[in-house]
Amino acid sequence: MIALDHLRHVNVEPARLARESYRAGKIEPTSGIAPGFTQANMIVLPRDWAFDFLLYAQRNPKACPVLDVSDPGSHSTILAAGADLRKDIPLYRIWRDGKLAEETADATAAWAEHPDLVSFLIGCSFTFETPMVEAGIEIRHMTDKCNVPMYLTNQPCRPAGRLHGNMVVSMRPIPANRVADAAMISGRFPSVHGSPVHVGAPELIGIADISKPDFGDAVRIEPGEVPVFWACGVTPQAAVMASGVPFAITHAPGHMFITDIPDSAYHA
Amino acid sequence: MIALDHLRHVNVEPARLARESYRAGKIEPTSGIAPGFTQANMIVLPRDWAFDFLLYAQRNPKACPVLDVSDPGSHSTILAAGADLRKDIPLYRIWRDGKLAEETADATAAWAEHPDLVSFLIGCSFTFETPMVEAGIEIRHMTDKCNVPMYLTNQPCRPAGRLHGNMVVSMRPIPANRVADAAMISGRFPSVHGSPVHVGAPELIGIADISKPDFGDAVRIEPGEVPVFWACGVTPQAAVMASGVPFAITHAPGHMFITDIPDSAYHA
Repeated sequence: MIALDHLRHVNVEPARLARESYRAGKIEPTSGIAPGFTQANMIVLPRDWAFDFLLYAQRNPKACPVLDVSDPGSHSTILAAGADLRKDIPLYRIWRDGKLAEETADATAAWAEHPDLVSFLIGCSFTFETPMVEAGIEIRHMTDKCNVPMYLTNQPCRPAGRLHGNMVVSMRPIPANRVADAAMISGRFPSVHGSPVHVGAPELIGIADISKPDFGDAVRIEPGEVPVFWACGVTPQAAVMASGVPFAITHAPGHMFITDIPDSAYHA
Repeated sequence: MIALDHLRHVNVEPARLARESYRAGKIEPTSGIAPGFTQANMIVLPRDWAFDFLLYAQRNPKACPVLDVSDPGSHSTILAAGADLRKDIPLYRIWRDGKLAEETADATAAWAEHPDLVSFLIGCSFTFETPMVEAGIEIRHMTDKCNVPMYLTNQPCRPAGRLHGNMVVSMRPIPANRVADAAMISGRFPSVHGSPVHVGAPELIGIADISKPDFGDAVRIEPGEVPVFWACGVTPQAAVMASGVPFAITHAPGHMFITDIPDSAYHA
């Protein structure tokens, strides 16, 4: 848990400037942007679906660690003063009947279709990349300035109400002698996916071709490196698709909401 | 998060026997019973209130760490095979319009009043008492074979929908030179209230007389001991009262649901 009133002396300028640039129309993956500030996945659903989703998150906390839930009809969050959830993410996806209908840099028009939307902000593994880099572990998609590779696995989440679907994972290639360090460092951040769910053996979780991610970009895996998999906040989008949810707004994979909360606030 | 399929080789006989004795009518506080098995607070609400409560828990995770949520109309839980949530707690409270209407050892009749009840099982600080005792820290209410003292504070929880109320805390007197150990040991169990919310100075959280707890029994505080306060799973009952919830079933304070899950599963 974070105690927000303890954070009022944090200088949040880098986070605010990043959000402003996205509000003005800039589109980019957010890994490495405003380092040290927690980034979040987002899924926005009509009030009628909110209990099902919150229960889905409670039952699948490693994939869907909830950082904040907005009141129905609101587009603000306690995680970032003055932010507008309709505009401050670089790229949105609009979903209709479980299908991707549109990508847009401004979700205001879609948001206006429903008066009672509830926004869920969900922890993102980018949070533990900073301490991993500080420990000397290279993050390949940061080095190569691309999006993190993400895969839809064959691992079912625990269903909740009308929602079901498989887990999505992000992958980072880690040198064999640093896998334990990567596991321990990320494990200190349980609110942002925590420790890996799977190490090596991608075929065991239904990944037939590691060079073809379902979301994001493929990255090099060098000799001596092992693919390490973390539960990913794109898992809700997989549930939207699998369950045929009538209407949802999400971030586009890798294009996150940047909060005012320092990563250290989520250190267990 | 616990991975339940990893636990199938645990011998759950002590937990099962305790639940059977309560189903047969035995009434006792459960601190120290079936040591090593996680105990849980319970609150049961009609489906119409379920989103408000799950959101209240999400917004107040230190007081309301959710371990499991049952499907509407169900009285089983993944945390204990074969358990019946209507009968397997030693003592229940039935609430009507925010007021305590009845205490009973069997909630079957009350449960039958609503077809769509949703049960929330919430972590209990009894879980970290075992490792504290193992570290040589005396737990006074265990020594004196009474119920843990609990207090309604003046600290408001973050509201959610129709639910609001103040935090309830449990108190354990700890020798001044072991307070740090008690904080660190309990801090390793974030799913069961985690580290203390307050140490010493009870008047600062609205406790006028430490010898008069609002729930449970008063305990001795010896010279050199400091009262240490943990967020308590009776907090939902305070919300039921403060918010005038029309109908709820809860455990009676200190009389918990004993699960089949080993305490170690909740070690961060």
